[in-house]
Amino acid sequence: MAGILSFLVPKDKKFFPLFEKASENLKQISAILVEMVNTSSPEKRRELIKEIERLEHVGDAVTHEIFNELSSNFITPFDREDIHTLVSSLDDIVDFIHGSAKRIELYKINEMTPAIIKLAELVQQGADELHNAVKNLRSMSNSSKIREACVKINSIENHADDVFDMTIAKLFEEEKDAVQIIKIKEVLSALETATDKCEDAANAISSIMIKYA
Amino acid sequence: MAGILSFLVPKDKKFFPLFEKASENLKQISAILVEMVNTSSPEKRRELIKEIERLEHVGDAVTHEIFNELSSNFITPFDREDIHTLVSSLDDIVDFIHGSAKRIELYKINEMTPAIIKLAELVQQGADELHNAVKNLRSMSNSSKIREACVKINSIENHADDVFDMTIAKLFEEEKDAVQIIKIKEVLSALETATDKCEDAANAISSIMIKYA
Amino acid sequence: MAGILSFLVPKDKKFFPLFEKASENLKQISAILVEMVNTSSPEKRRELIKEIERLEHVGDAVTHEIFNELSSNFITPFDREDIHTLVSSLDDIVDFIHGSAKRIELYKINEMTPAIIKLAELVQQGADELHNAVKNLRSMSNSSKIREACVKINSIENHADDVFDMTIAKLFEEEKDAVQIIKIKEVLSALETATDKCEDAANAISSIMIKYA
Repeated sequence: MAGILSFLVPKDKKFFPLFEKASENLKQISAILVEMVNTSSPEKRRELIKEIERLEHVGDAVTHEIFNELSSNFITPFDREDIHTLVSSLDDIVDFIHGSAKRIELYKINEMTPAIIKLAELVQQGADELHNAVKNLRSMSNSSKIREACVKINSIENHADDVFDMTIAKLFEEEKDAVQIIKIKEVLSALETATDKCEDAANAISSIMIKYA
Repeated sequence: MAGILSFLVPKDKKFFPLFEKASENLKQISAILVEMVNTSSPEKRRELIKEIERLEHVGDAVTHEIFNELSSNFITPFDREDIHTLVSSLDDIVDFIHGSAKRIELYKINEMTPAIIKLAELVQQGADELHNAVKNLRSMSNSSKIREACVKINSIENHADDVFDMTIAKLFEEEKDAVQIIKIKEVLSALETATDKCEDAANAISSIMIKYA
Repeated sequence: MAGILSFLVPKDKKFFPLFEKASENLKQISAILVEMVNTSSPEKRRELIKEIERLEHVGDAVTHEIFNELSSNFITPFDREDIHTLVSSLDDIVDFIHGSAKRIELYKINEMTPAIIKLAELVQQGADELHNAVKNLRSMSNSSKIREACVKINSIENHADDVFDMTIAKLFEEEKDAVQIIKIKEVLSALETATDKCEDAANAISSIMIKYA
């Protein structure tokens, strides 16, 4: 049906480039996140955290631009509600990536545990799938690919949930220093919440698909 | 006025059975929760936690079904916004019930404290009131009963709030093991948040009542 | 443009006085909060916490009144969505102020740290700016003042974020008692979240400005 009806989808020239700018930025910041938790050099890590900070500001500016467009345009390519949820979720993912990086720095966590690395990778996978889905929103010709991405993001979130729960449970058993538990829990929780927000974004995209594809 | 105007309420055949399916499932999962925190047999507890997990999946499927109907139907029995809030909140309650059960298992909490039992019971009371209110939404003929349920849910949430606050304060005074404090706090906080979500659902129902009753 | 188009803004007689009542109450409760964290007398502190509790109830009643008006009026001065976000956020700020005060009392925190005092002051600054912005919403003639307030609230939130992050990081380094860390973190986190909610309210106001000014 997508093929037949796709001409009905407004060929909006303002919104789609902005959506892609937001998801492209998300893809980039999550790649830096994975690089950052995998480096063993403290200087390199500091540099990468600075880059994450910079990209968070870039994301803020794009979000702001989209909300301005949303408020000043009567006609939007999708339901305002769906756009609002999608864009807020993309912004939230970036914020939680930034939050996890900031905590790693501030709490002086020098050893990146396997769980931190695994969760960072899951965030990146979610971000990549979202970028693919957002790029395909413009033409709507690839609705099966969009749906596939949303399904994958759902299973990524479930996986992250399990990694988080198991790690915290193990931490409670093995780590006797409560302060250390609190610190690690704060970092893992920011990463796990980032995957929750990936799911929120995927849900907004699914909702758009049901209405237009 | 409800009696006079009730014929104006669309006799929707798709949505109401789904709303009731969601609230019936919530009623069931919260009954299992109370059974689970009251059993002294670890095997029985594990079994009941598995059943909670199963019902969480059932709830997810119903939520998904309602959101699909919401996206593909132009006409809905109530404001889409209110339906969205109501259904999301019912889903959230189920999620937090599941979350508290999962934490009890993962953190190997073997002794159910009076506060855990009390909060589980408050969640169940809230769930029962919500199921009653949702059942009465269909006819709108019992608006005073719906309102009563919403008032009760509000006072249940206040009560849960107090139990939570007092228990945490006592825990800080009496429990010297910080790790134990963190564990118990996580379980209590999931249960207390479940009652917050009951209140969100009740607020959505109140909003529907003001518009249609 | 605001001047030219301002006659288009409905001169609503129900909503504006209620908005101002809500923001006036917020201004008041945040002033009491600052007084409370600055007093050295435990009795005085208890009294002020009681006053905070009383004003929280006042805020609840106003919120409830606005939501009732919103549900029963077809015509509203701004988009329902924006009103909903604005009023919910004002209510949330009051709740988090109350929450921080309750925790100070329940956890028997007797020494108000510089970070607690600083964050309370930032909450008050945010509340004052919001009250100014809300008062100016009625006429829309002062759109530059409203915008200025929103910009200030954004920078207040950033400042609060930094104070929170730095304090937690320092706490992790200097405080060896994990229970103490958890307690202080709970109080600071309630205050910091209050400034987040100030930003949400400011965003709702900005959204209204873009549409009407």
